[in-house]
Amino acid sequence: MNREENSGNELDIENDEVMDWKHNETETYSHTQPLLFKRVKTTSQIAIVGSNICPIESLDYEILENEFFKQDWRSRKKVQIFQYVILKWAFALLIGLLTGLFGIFNNIAVENLSGFKLLMTTNLMTQHKYFKAFAVFAGCNVVFAAAAATLCAFISPAAAGSGIPKVKAYLNGVDAYSILAPGTLFVKIFGSVLGVSAGFVVGKEGPMVHTGACIVDRRDLITCGAAAGVAAAFRAPVGGVLFALEEAASWWRSTLLWRTFFTTAVVAIVLRAFIQICSTGRCGLFGEGGLIMYDVSAAAVMYSGADILAVILLGTIRGIFGSLYNYLVDKVLRVYSILNRKGAAFKVLLVIIISLLTSCCAYGLSWFATCIPCPTHESISCPNTDESGNNKSFQCPPGYYNDLASLFLNTNDDAIRNLMSTSTVKEFHIHTLIIFFAAVFCLGIITYGIAFPTGLFIPVILAGACYGRLVGRLFETISKLDAGLFALLGAASFLGGTMRMTVSLCDILLELTNDLLLLPLVMLVLLISKSVADIFNKGVYDQIVKLNGFPYLEAHAEPYMRQLVALDVVSGPLITFSGIEKVGNILHALRTTGHNGFPVIDDPPLSDAPELCGIVLRSHLLVLLKGKAFSKDRIFAGEEIFHRFAVFDFAKAGSGKGIKVEDLDIEEEEMDMYIDLHPITNTSPYMVVETMSLAKVALLFRQLGLRHMCVIPKSQGRPPVVGILTRHDFMPVHILGLYPHMKPHK
Amino acid sequence: MNREENSGNELDIENDEVMDWKHNETETYSHTQPLLFKRVKTTSQIAIVGSNICPIESLDYEILENEFFKQDWRSRKKVQIFQYVILKWAFALLIGLLTGLFGIFNNIAVENLSGFKLLMTTNLMTQHKYFKAFAVFAGCNVVFAAAAATLCAFISPAAAGSGIPKVKAYLNGVDAYSILAPGTLFVKIFGSVLGVSAGFVVGKEGPMVHTGACIVDRRDLITCGAAAGVAAAFRAPVGGVLFALEEAASWWRSTLLWRTFFTTAVVAIVLRAFIQICSTGRCGLFGEGGLIMYDVSAAAVMYSGADILAVILLGTIRGIFGSLYNYLVDKVLRVYSILNRKGAAFKVLLVIIISLLTSCCAYGLSWFATCIPCPTHESISCPNTDESGNNKSFQCPPGYYNDLASLFLNTNDDAIRNLMSTSTVKEFHIHTLIIFFAAVFCLGIITYGIAFPTGLFIPVILAGACYGRLVGRLFETISKLDAGLFALLGAASFLGGTMRMTVSLCDILLELTNDLLLLPLVMLVLLISKSVADIFNKGVYDQIVKLNGFPYLEAHAEPYMRQLVALDVVSGPLITFSGIEKVGNILHALRTTGHNGFPVIDDPPLSDAPELCGIVLRSHLLVLLKGKAFSKDRIFAGEEIFHRFAVFDFAKAGSGKGIKVEDLDIEEEEMDMYIDLHPITNTSPYMVVETMSLAKVALLFRQLGLRHMCVIPKSQGRPPVVGILTRHDFMPVHILGLYPHMKPHK
Repeated sequence: MNREENSGNELDIENDEVMDWKHNETETYSHTQPLLFKRVKTTSQIAIVGSNICPIESLDYEILENEFFKQDWRSRKKVQIFQYVILKWAFALLIGLLTGLFGIFNNIAVENLSGFKLLMTTNLMTQHKYFKAFAVFAGCNVVFAAAAATLCAFISPAAAGSGIPKVKAYLNGVDAYSILAPGTLFVKIFGSVLGVSAGFVVGKEGPMVHTGACIVDRRDLITCGAAAGVAAAFRAPVGGVLFALEEAASWWRSTLLWRTFFTTAVVAIVLRAFIQICSTGRCGLFGEGGLIMYDVSAAAVMYSGADILAVILLGTIRGIFGSLYNYLVDKVLRVYSILNRKGAAFKVLLVIIISLLTSCCAYGLSWFATCIPCPTHESISCPNTDESGNNKSFQCPPGYYNDLASLFLNTNDDAIRNLMSTSTVKEFHIHTLIIFFAAVFCLGIITYGIAFPTGLFIPVILAGACYGRLVGRLFETISKLDAGLFALLGAASFLGGTMRMTVSLCDILLELTNDLLLLPLVMLVLLISKSVADIFNKGVYDQIVKLNGFPYLEAHAEPYMRQLVALDVVSGPLITFSGIEKVGNILHALRTTGHNGFPVIDDPPLSDAPELCGIVLRSHLLVLLKGKAFSKDRIFAGEEIFHRFAVFDFAKAGSGKGIKVEDLDIEEEEMDMYIDLHPITNTSPYMVVETMSLAKVALLFRQLGLRHMCVIPKSQGRPPVVGILTRHDFMPVHILGLYPHMKPHK
Repeated sequence: MNREENSGNELDIENDEVMDWKHNETETYSHTQPLLFKRVKTTSQIAIVGSNICPIESLDYEILENEFFKQDWRSRKKVQIFQYVILKWAFALLIGLLTGLFGIFNNIAVENLSGFKLLMTTNLMTQHKYFKAFAVFAGCNVVFAAAAATLCAFISPAAAGSGIPKVKAYLNGVDAYSILAPGTLFVKIFGSVLGVSAGFVVGKEGPMVHTGACIVDRRDLITCGAAAGVAAAFRAPVGGVLFALEEAASWWRSTLLWRTFFTTAVVAIVLRAFIQICSTGRCGLFGEGGLIMYDVSAAAVMYSGADILAVILLGTIRGIFGSLYNYLVDKVLRVYSILNRKGAAFKVLLVIIISLLTSCCAYGLSWFATCIPCPTHESISCPNTDESGNNKSFQCPPGYYNDLASLFLNTNDDAIRNLMSTSTVKEFHIHTLIIFFAAVFCLGIITYGIAFPTGLFIPVILAGACYGRLVGRLFETISKLDAGLFALLGAASFLGGTMRMTVSLCDILLELTNDLLLLPLVMLVLLISKSVADIFNKGVYDQIVKLNGFPYLEAHAEPYMRQLVALDVVSGPLITFSGIEKVGNILHALRTTGHNGFPVIDDPPLSDAPELCGIVLRSHLLVLLKGKAFSKDRIFAGEEIFHRFAVFDFAKAGSGKGIKVEDLDIEEEEMDMYIDLHPITNTSPYMVVETMSLAKVALLFRQLGLRHMCVIPKSQGRPPVVGILTRHDFMPVHILGLYPHMKPHK
């Protein structure tokens, strides 16, 4: 099992160089084993992460009550507070505007690129140049795919995949290297456009969420960004807020709801404005189909007991399918992670192979469909040779259409719209739906995980809608619900079975279809498919988070955590500093460990008995060392320190920036000088008593969004702090490594 | 200011008997003043509450890790855990079903009662028996009103008002006496039906939320109940979930989202089933109008810059109106609280007076409207003599209708539907709208707070819709938006300005109108009116919570809290017990204080140095005392104790139940015996260091949902606990009483 764990954790590895574990790990307060003891490497989550060249940092949302902080807010005037508030709202506005613009850009670009490709193909088809048509179709796809993969593999490998698991991990407190870098943003935007245009069975919503999150780099704003991403992808502003709340965020405050809502409102307004502009035809091939919006309102929604029975069956089977999907995605990702380690060129090659496979499926399978006579309604253009729409002509003679080509030779958005179209019960044959479902299900699984930005929503909706319509056809005799409604319910059930979201999905579907009357059925089907799928495995995003090796803190404590207390997992050599410490000691500690926080203990003569003064952070220590706030004797720094350093010096640097130990230039004679740590010590760290059960500690740790937590002794007369708990001390692999007899929750 | 505070706090007082403060207060760990020092009474929030005959208890959601708890879950088998999970879901299902049924019952009863009344009145009007018509109209109203008031005043005074503030306070951790009692539930259901039928400007949603919450008595389930209430009132399942999240709950977990959603789904399905049953005419006068659902989809939604300008103006003005509304409601409530103290008969009298006033307004003002010729569309029945619908005949000759009577002589739901009707721009005259707006605005303010279940949503929506339509008429020349849409936006803006909710209101309106295209405008108007109103005062529910004197913990710490540390507010005589304590000491402490938790300290010889063992709860102490788990000597209780008591003995009793000190029957010779407190001591209470800033402590306290928090000393050699913080130590009145120079946030 550990073997698998390891291979999974190397998903993001770009370099096979074996790094020294001690050098890379960033939080190692509490190993029972000495540092050289090799077993650590297989039992600790951090050890696994440490084998990765990109160290994963933990985030910290504690209020740091040190002297600088206090000085700062005491001196802060009303104007500055006001400025700060304005700034936060301005950022929320900016995120909304930019995400809205990216959303529009994405849609216009995709519609134009794939519209161009499809028009060319269709034109050649009408001239019966079938092989040339395939060459153009597959050629365009491969070119787009290769471009996307090249961008991703060479500029920002972190941009691969959905992005939602990464945002989720970030909001849980895991800061993986470069997941929010500008390069990632760039690749996300263009890679996603190219990937979707290449006709892959992928969506643009996951990348859109990541795009929204990339724009800024602070927890609350990232939550806003994630919400804005969903709002932009689905034109579902309330759905975006709910998505951020239900799936993305690990912490939540009511203020956040308010600001997230503001951001998604801005997105909605931007989208709306552009749609009005584009409706005059100024956006190239971007037409009605640009932003997905499925209209099922034409169908009368009256349902009986038999319909509900059919829907329950649909949900149950789908729950099983959904968990199967997750299982297969997991397996495929593990294989890909091995392939991707072979280098960037291999990544691009893999993308090209999958692209060719997709093209062959889309073009080749369409030949198996029999031509269907066009319906006689005047309003429908059939057969259709536009770049979108249904009733595609393909190889059929005039007056006939190919129903499989209507699904395959279209953008994914259009295919979904066709499947959800109402009052067109007979439009698709049952065997067409079976072929398309099988193809999309398989292609969706093998496409996620290759090296370009890929969304999971659209493949899932596509497969789900096809499945739903199929069930609708099969139940024709029993249920009177429209096939388009069945497609919608199928999509809902598959989303529920895969993503395991409920309220947000429900709302997104509500906003996508603009029909409230369906809500009870959608809710029912979501509840059933989620419940069924939950029996088998976790949601797909949780799986990917785990696969990436992110030390994600679960909302629930594992049962075995109740049998352990805080002291049981906290151990190892605890490095503490004295209130006024020698420069040499600090430097040594910073160089030999990757610790990020150190307890500060005042010993006599600074106090009567040893007492815990608080915690200092590595980054703050580096600022003091860089600024050489040293003194010859063991004395307090005094007021003067507040003039030498500004609060801004201690502000959190963006990920990857900030001072490093190697940047320091300390002379030999300075090593014996002293440094007063009191001004930078957070004097009120959160503390728990050593006998508190680990389950209770874990919930507290997650709820407060901490990076360090002090464990204090129960009895007096011992050192004032017995250890420090960090994120990785709560990881099952760490705990089960220490206590192998404990049974994990399956 | 304190004077006002006091009068406000007596809103719920049923009895003028002056109670001894010491007897009633329930949490008094930390008064700087000695108990006899009178100033406490005016400065401490609890003191104010203590002057009330119904003591307000705090709720506690800490995981109590005592020996019994550990024994329990160790012995718990998988089957039992499974049973527990099933039970929780079963309760969620039950809440959904019952709330749905109550919702249906409420609607059917209201439609039938008021339909009967309106039909009688209209029939008499058509016979030109105007005075008799008024007598019937006003008579019915008074009878319904008096019945509602009698129920409320004599059976359950706690059922008066909206209920949402009470549910909100409960979910914050304030357990006011009998807010969730069965009597309250009964009065809520019938009082609300009678009150709405009596033609008051009140709604049924607040009571519905309270009804949902009353069905069970645990935090998570109450959250589900509150969501179910909104879902049932508005047929807005997603809106219900969001309401619970945004407005009601102080704590939130993702599991809760999932369960709340399940509950509202059940409500939606129940409602749906009944609507199908009722559509065949089997529910008396209950017709289309039963469950509110406003259809504005007929209007084309294309808006330009001018429209947006009009909407912004509408939102801004409405924000001011909204805060004015809150201000007036506050003032009126303070006056009513004085009147209501005069006894139950006075309460009923007040209700009757307001009822007569409402009847006079509704009937009398309608005479001021001029008759309007009926529109010539064939589809509309005009003039209309049904119990609902628009174009009421009133005094007008055939072929004419009275537009003011269409609004006044209707249920509130129907009036809103008329105001929001689209494509009927000219239906209402401008002066009609002005009269109706003024009447509804004033009646809404004076009606809330009288003694029967009153909702605030409907009055606000009614006034808002009228205002919106008025603005729409005034802007006719500039904006092309339909008057019905303006009515909707007006309702949204007034809701935003009064309730200050955003996402949930947006979603509720979305679900009410079933039109997504309006969303950007609704969002805009909500944001503006909320922002504007926030400048002036707080949301109406927060005001009422404060007025009720509930010690509500705010989500944000006040700025002055940063200047204080935990130790500054924690003080007073701290009563601690030894690990094995004399029965007499415990009994004395329980009798002379109202404390609910006591620190347990192990002294030598039990330990080497004094150490904090944990906290015992009053209720658990009472169980041990009642069971006489005494021993002659100072020895540990041993295993035997776990056979004498079952875990169930220590389970939380419903509010008002449980053992009381007076129930104990301790003999004189038992007073010198010992009792081992270790088995019931929660050994891992949450602790903060005395120097932690009060702001940080307050946030922690609220986030974790605590009742007690131990403050430990920074330095060793002192007693292991320096005090206990409770909810009231964070109340501004308490802190500002201790430190009058601190400036509160205005």
